[in-house]
Amino acid sequence: MQSVDMIIKAPHFYTMAGDGVGYKESITMVVDRGRIIALENDSNIFREYRSENILDLAHHAIFPGFIDAHMHTGYAIMRGLAQDTNNWMMYGLQPFDNVLTVSERLAGSKLAIIEAIKSGTTTIGDFDSNMEGVCSFIDKIGVRGNITSTIREAKRRVYNPGELYEFDESLGEKSLFENLRLFEKWNNKNNGLIKILFGPQGADFVSKEMLIKIQRLAKDRNTKIHMHLQQGDRETYQIVNRFNRRPIEWLQEIGFLDSTLIGVHLTDAENEEATLVAKSGASMIVCPGSIGIIDGIVPPSVAFQVAGGDVALGSDQAAGNNCHNIINEMKLVTLFNKIKYNNPESMPAWRALRMATIEGAKALGLDNAIGSLEVGKRADFIAIDLNKPSMLPVFTKPMRNIVPNLVYSARGDEVALSVVEGKIIYKDGKIRNTDENEYIDTNKYTSGIGERAAKEFYKIDGTNAKFMREEKL
Amino acid sequence: MQSVDMIIKAPHFYTMAGDGVGYKESITMVVDRGRIIALENDSNIFREYRSENILDLAHHAIFPGFIDAHMHTGYAIMRGLAQDTNNWMMYGLQPFDNVLTVSERLAGSKLAIIEAIKSGTTTIGDFDSNMEGVCSFIDKIGVRGNITSTIREAKRRVYNPGELYEFDESLGEKSLFENLRLFEKWNNKNNGLIKILFGPQGADFVSKEMLIKIQRLAKDRNTKIHMHLQQGDRETYQIVNRFNRRPIEWLQEIGFLDSTLIGVHLTDAENEEATLVAKSGASMIVCPGSIGIIDGIVPPSVAFQVAGGDVALGSDQAAGNNCHNIINEMKLVTLFNKIKYNNPESMPAWRALRMATIEGAKALGLDNAIGSLEVGKRADFIAIDLNKPSMLPVFTKPMRNIVPNLVYSARGDEVALSVVEGKIIYKDGKIRNTDENEYIDTNKYTSGIGERAAKEFYKIDGTNAKFMREEKL
Repeated sequence: MQSVDMIIKAPHFYTMAGDGVGYKESITMVVDRGRIIALENDSNIFREYRSENILDLAHHAIFPGFIDAHMHTGYAIMRGLAQDTNNWMMYGLQPFDNVLTVSERLAGSKLAIIEAIKSGTTTIGDFDSNMEGVCSFIDKIGVRGNITSTIREAKRRVYNPGELYEFDESLGEKSLFENLRLFEKWNNKNNGLIKILFGPQGADFVSKEMLIKIQRLAKDRNTKIHMHLQQGDRETYQIVNRFNRRPIEWLQEIGFLDSTLIGVHLTDAENEEATLVAKSGASMIVCPGSIGIIDGIVPPSVAFQVAGGDVALGSDQAAGNNCHNIINEMKLVTLFNKIKYNNPESMPAWRALRMATIEGAKALGLDNAIGSLEVGKRADFIAIDLNKPSMLPVFTKPMRNIVPNLVYSARGDEVALSVVEGKIIYKDGKIRNTDENEYIDTNKYTSGIGERAAKEFYKIDGTNAKFMREEKL
Repeated sequence: MQSVDMIIKAPHFYTMAGDGVGYKESITMVVDRGRIIALENDSNIFREYRSENILDLAHHAIFPGFIDAHMHTGYAIMRGLAQDTNNWMMYGLQPFDNVLTVSERLAGSKLAIIEAIKSGTTTIGDFDSNMEGVCSFIDKIGVRGNITSTIREAKRRVYNPGELYEFDESLGEKSLFENLRLFEKWNNKNNGLIKILFGPQGADFVSKEMLIKIQRLAKDRNTKIHMHLQQGDRETYQIVNRFNRRPIEWLQEIGFLDSTLIGVHLTDAENEEATLVAKSGASMIVCPGSIGIIDGIVPPSVAFQVAGGDVALGSDQAAGNNCHNIINEMKLVTLFNKIKYNNPESMPAWRALRMATIEGAKALGLDNAIGSLEVGKRADFIAIDLNKPSMLPVFTKPMRNIVPNLVYSARGDEVALSVVEGKIIYKDGKIRNTDENEYIDTNKYTSGIGERAAKEFYKIDGTNAKFMREEKL
């Protein structure tokens, strides 16, 4: 009889193995040293394995932990300050973003990561500068991190429409150096719990030479490039002006589209361009909520999938989404595509669930480790409480309703338990390994940020300033 | 010093008075005998009033209770059984809907009502047959009910495309009689906590004579008609065939469009038709989630508002939405219209909040009683816990972010307290006046329903049957 770290019993397992959702009824999962070592519908398993840690989840469904593939967690310190306006970055975000300190951004990151875990995310796909603090926090609380450090040569992040970016090579070298430093320090830390990716901010934010250099560095290190891709008309304008090509066309010409690339958003991409990227072997991350709020656009993720590409989901940033709840993104990607194609069949619940699990893992190149519950994979899983009103009642015959209810009805508080690498990181509303009330502390920063941002906020006099005057906020 | 039922202190009040959100900082609200009797930012209020029931909500924002204006609560017993398919009613719902008993539907209603309250709804706008049990349940738990009893002359509820409905006058008389009986028994019960409306299922489901008769009965009783209006191409087909007019055009001709009418959905209405209804004085209920899932359509609620009409929000039914979470509907109405108009400014957060509160109350003709926090109005309000991650951090200057975060970030579990007519009906996760775990009991019905529905489910062999075969559920 083998002694193991954990044995999990539940009436419903969605393993995500195969091409569907890999449903198994009343099976038992055995976890040891961070991995799934058995998964059988044979109760005899208790004759082979014993554990001091038996989780008997009598009214729960087990899913692989969700992957939130693209986040800017630090922006959560500015939650709710930038929506409902045209040119979100210039007219909404800028006054606040310009005045933030590194420690304020880190407070936002902690808040966002805690929020994400509380809705079932077990892999945090964060993308920003100054990621040392985020890596330490992820390491401390035990959530999986797919971390990208921004590389940028453009001098500013916000330019007026029609203005061409100015480049400063030294900025590029400095940010690339930081990306490399982070890679050396954190990549594959804790059995691969943390991965470091290369992060050119977008094709428009760096030179061609820098892109080629990054590609070589990433390939040499067997990691991925995580980059905003044809993310808006601003980017398209820059690339067309510089190279007389649209971004995706140009990136193909310089050999940048291949399986090393994870492209985010494709907001301004036509179906044909999305198809081109998918066929190159690159993958896509779609952020339905943020692009819906910021641009009122539904990116071509369905065209990407039709072309055979893998698409992951991302919650992007809280100033402009305004939440980090991957269940929300599953719901929105289905609803938005039903509306885009005027067809209730265009994007079903099961596909969204795959995007948050195994398809997302494939898109990130992590499917050897996570995304499904299979023997040999890392033990990243969550338990959904089926006794919450949003998940009731439970039908199993002639059809099961658990997946549609998770995607279309669940709020997030149905997540009762989260396990990463075989360790419980969240249970019954509490995150282990941190004083989670620490996040309430973000309130201590807001009056300072507000004071520093006020002058520019009033000067821009955007939609939200008007709403304040009109008592609509 | 006057002794009163309740005194409420909080740092943020959104009164919804005026044209915006009526924000007041750190005021105190006095409630007595079900009404708001004072609302002042003067702490001297404690010299005028005393109460044994002082709620000091130190990290909360107070809002009027939310209005979910259109629900079919009984359908919650079929949650998650009918989405992701074309012709939702025929290919998804029918096998299950056809076999339900009255007690199974009532169990669904209780589940849906509890679910709705847990996300901040204090006015339940239910529409179905056999509403006696729903009225009793609402009466027991103290939530506000705006109840409509279905009137239908068409023999069946589901016809094949192209088939003209057959009418049976006696069915119409019977269902009208039940509507009248319900009105006599329940209308204005408990100081008006329950209202009974007249409910022709749609212009296509009753004869012209019946519509005229219902209109007279409703006007005589000073109540409203709550009716599905141009809800789909099926309805349009019936009316065009019978009267050679599209539904709204025909209803205008027969004098049915006026302030007595609350029209639901307008799924198949053009902007011009929505405008015609709005200008008649009739109001609209839009159900973004259900129509998004069922039809992939964004109804013309913005055109209705532009024409000066009032629009309320509804969660419709759980088999086809699949939830009763009015915060979800606020979010979806903004996001869907941003996408519909490709414009992030087309439907801001504050407008969605008005639709769930004061604009919704106006649409229902209840704005003399509810929808805003003003002296003389009924004390229906909720407290949102601003210490939940989704609502953090809180900014007040130079802009407030509470409303955008409620609409775009909140999940539902931020609702910490609900009060209706001055009585706490929900607090800290528990609904008073009912054993709320009763709803878990809905599980006892599912195997029976499944057995009865299986034959037709397999015979129809729709998308969900295919998904079961393909292991996608």
